[in-house]
Amino acid sequence: MTSLLAAQTNAGHGASSPARVLRCRNCGAEYPLIAVHACAECFGPLEVGYDADALAAVTRAQIESGPNNIWRYAPLLPVGQNPDDRVSLNPGLTPLVRADRLAEAIGLNAPLWVKDDSANPTHSFKDRVVSLALTAAKGLGYNSVACASTGNLANSVAAHAARVGWQATVFIPSDLEPSKILASAVYNPRLVAVDGSYDDVNRLTSELQEDDAFESTAFVNQNVRPYYAEGSKTLGYEVAEQLGWRLPAQVVVPIASGSLLTKVDKAFGELVKAGIVDERAYRVFGAQSLGCSPVYTAFAEGQDVVRPVKPTGIAKSLNIGNPADGPYVLDAVRRTGGAIAAVDDDEIRAGIRLLAETTGIFGETAGGVTIAVLKKLVAEGAIDRDAETVVFNTGEGLKTADAVESQVGPTHRIEPSLRSAREAGLLG
Amino acid sequence: MTSLLAAQTNAGHGASSPARVLRCRNCGAEYPLIAVHACAECFGPLEVGYDADALAAVTRAQIESGPNNIWRYAPLLPVGQNPDDRVSLNPGLTPLVRADRLAEAIGLNAPLWVKDDSANPTHSFKDRVVSLALTAAKGLGYNSVACASTGNLANSVAAHAARVGWQATVFIPSDLEPSKILASAVYNPRLVAVDGSYDDVNRLTSELQEDDAFESTAFVNQNVRPYYAEGSKTLGYEVAEQLGWRLPAQVVVPIASGSLLTKVDKAFGELVKAGIVDERAYRVFGAQSLGCSPVYTAFAEGQDVVRPVKPTGIAKSLNIGNPADGPYVLDAVRRTGGAIAAVDDDEIRAGIRLLAETTGIFGETAGGVTIAVLKKLVAEGAIDRDAETVVFNTGEGLKTADAVESQVGPTHRIEPSLRSAREAGLLG
Repeated sequence: MTSLLAAQTNAGHGASSPARVLRCRNCGAEYPLIAVHACAECFGPLEVGYDADALAAVTRAQIESGPNNIWRYAPLLPVGQNPDDRVSLNPGLTPLVRADRLAEAIGLNAPLWVKDDSANPTHSFKDRVVSLALTAAKGLGYNSVACASTGNLANSVAAHAARVGWQATVFIPSDLEPSKILASAVYNPRLVAVDGSYDDVNRLTSELQEDDAFESTAFVNQNVRPYYAEGSKTLGYEVAEQLGWRLPAQVVVPIASGSLLTKVDKAFGELVKAGIVDERAYRVFGAQSLGCSPVYTAFAEGQDVVRPVKPTGIAKSLNIGNPADGPYVLDAVRRTGGAIAAVDDDEIRAGIRLLAETTGIFGETAGGVTIAVLKKLVAEGAIDRDAETVVFNTGEGLKTADAVESQVGPTHRIEPSLRSAREAGLLG
Repeated sequence: MTSLLAAQTNAGHGASSPARVLRCRNCGAEYPLIAVHACAECFGPLEVGYDADALAAVTRAQIESGPNNIWRYAPLLPVGQNPDDRVSLNPGLTPLVRADRLAEAIGLNAPLWVKDDSANPTHSFKDRVVSLALTAAKGLGYNSVACASTGNLANSVAAHAARVGWQATVFIPSDLEPSKILASAVYNPRLVAVDGSYDDVNRLTSELQEDDAFESTAFVNQNVRPYYAEGSKTLGYEVAEQLGWRLPAQVVVPIASGSLLTKVDKAFGELVKAGIVDERAYRVFGAQSLGCSPVYTAFAEGQDVVRPVKPTGIAKSLNIGNPADGPYVLDAVRRTGGAIAAVDDDEIRAGIRLLAETTGIFGETAGGVTIAVLKKLVAEGAIDRDAETVVFNTGEGLKTADAVESQVGPTHRIEPSLRSAREAGLLG
């Protein structure tokens, strides 16, 4: 254990944090709230464990009196109870958009909502998890930050670091979309393009974090991952609050590492346990790209084990071939009676356009995946046409412009004259 | 007067709207609240006139009890008092970001804030004005919408129309940034690329709106412009509310048509008159690109008349060579003791990067203009280093990626191995 880790053991967290331990999701072994993410006993992933009484005591009024961002849920999060401790762009409370035209287009008869996380500061849901990770990192004594990323996480880490003046080192596959590279580079981090897949990048950063050169660096999705991952719970909390403190019957969530899906499910469960929402049956559906669908394959084949794949396809932000939370996704989907589907690149492009044309929301390829999967699951009868549904758009179309730019463009080209407008048919 | 206009005269607006007339800003002639924007007497621009008693009766509590978007200010707006009447993506309440690192970088000793309107649904301040325009248009009996745009307005009009299922016809200069073209095209409007400048496009749409083919079409920045323009007031209201209901000492606002700057000033004045904020001296500063700086030129030369120019340069969203509100900008800046400055393309690029590196906000070229002008005015002593300042970022960097993409990028490129990382110097 390095000296920084030793100091963390005694650092503790504010008395008002409900977090008590890190607990192995495989074997249940417990650890103090330090910067570790894998169990020393069984190598299983660690998760934040809370004081059940503290969570149960949280009330709607307490949340509603908080700020208009994720920190209103601080009583349900491991860190950030004290505003001065937060390292955050203050994301969250993104729009929950009623999508009647989309519902009609795909044959849903009940209310359909799009939770639009492209409204976050760097235009993806990653701002939520990075805010948690960096706030935890500050409390644990770190003063620089790193990550392995398929793009959105890199954007968010670089932007957060710029706001507070930390050094950021961001590792990305070198074949990412140009807009995602630019939207990290503009913040001037150390931006390391790695000639390999995301899974290669992730393995590399796992090794780098053990090097002395990175001793004071928090790797947001590795050594502080347990805190980081809890940020995704806020998407679940917000959906419930924005529906008027109730759970929807069905949710459709994209799967990359799988963490987002499992945390939305966890958030719903916590709200029920705290008595903040009424218990109800809900079903969780997962969305993958056929270019990278290991969890879909395991689901379809009835397996419990997720076999890694080599990703291809345009939905790069979902291209994690060895998803850390794959087995937990299978658990949540099967337990709630949901399903997982996967769609190809043409369906993804059509999903982006369908979402845009019916809601005014320009989602990234991951959003196209999720909308296309929603459409497919409705057509197949897996999603109940008569039950309220929430679908997640987790990122911004401008970041994956290349996916659709060859498909859409000006419908008319004219000279600046009435005559030219008439010749183009614009005057009827 | 067409039959639609005749009907509008009798349509009226809800009893709870404080708007009473359209009034000529030149000669004071009054008109009913219909779809006209130029005075029949003198061709001057029309502006919404309010019932002074109704505005004066508005309270902080009334606003604070409203929704977390521009409609919380409905008691101060001409339309949208009834939620069911709104045609809106519900923009607004965008972050007011404390920018200590930017302040330090440019030598400001007092609090500096960035009002970040890239957080709006289509990532520019135009969502505010389009929401007002389309809400007015619906009340006036229109069911389709058009605009002339330098890009952001087109994006917002197309997205709003997509959400409600209206036909949109969007006219843009054909040489716009590819991302701005895409971010309209994806919503599937009639997207008309015009081989000419914005001013050419604007003249063309002025003529088109008189054609029978467009009789039931609202042109957001032409025949419903008086309502449209009022949407920009919400930026001023929000700044005051987010500062804890007080006015800042200095604001720096980009100038395209000039409407935004004059409406922020108008909003501050209304809040003082209503007793919602205390009266105080404040100074309004304007920012232009040297590629299109007619208002700056008039200011620098002490002229009252703004001579049109042919725009050049990368700040395309500000490239309006014949700014409709130019003279009113000069009035507001001179009356408050402010100033106007202009910056070249290199300064604009540096402004984008400075904003990003110190705040985590990736602004578009217009944001780069405003930051660069802020820096210049501080260096020249025109802006008081010891007085609180608010600067407006009105759009999103991803939409003008080409401005900086040749300047930034990966700092390292490696193989996925420790050895390669070491050779690249990442391990110290």
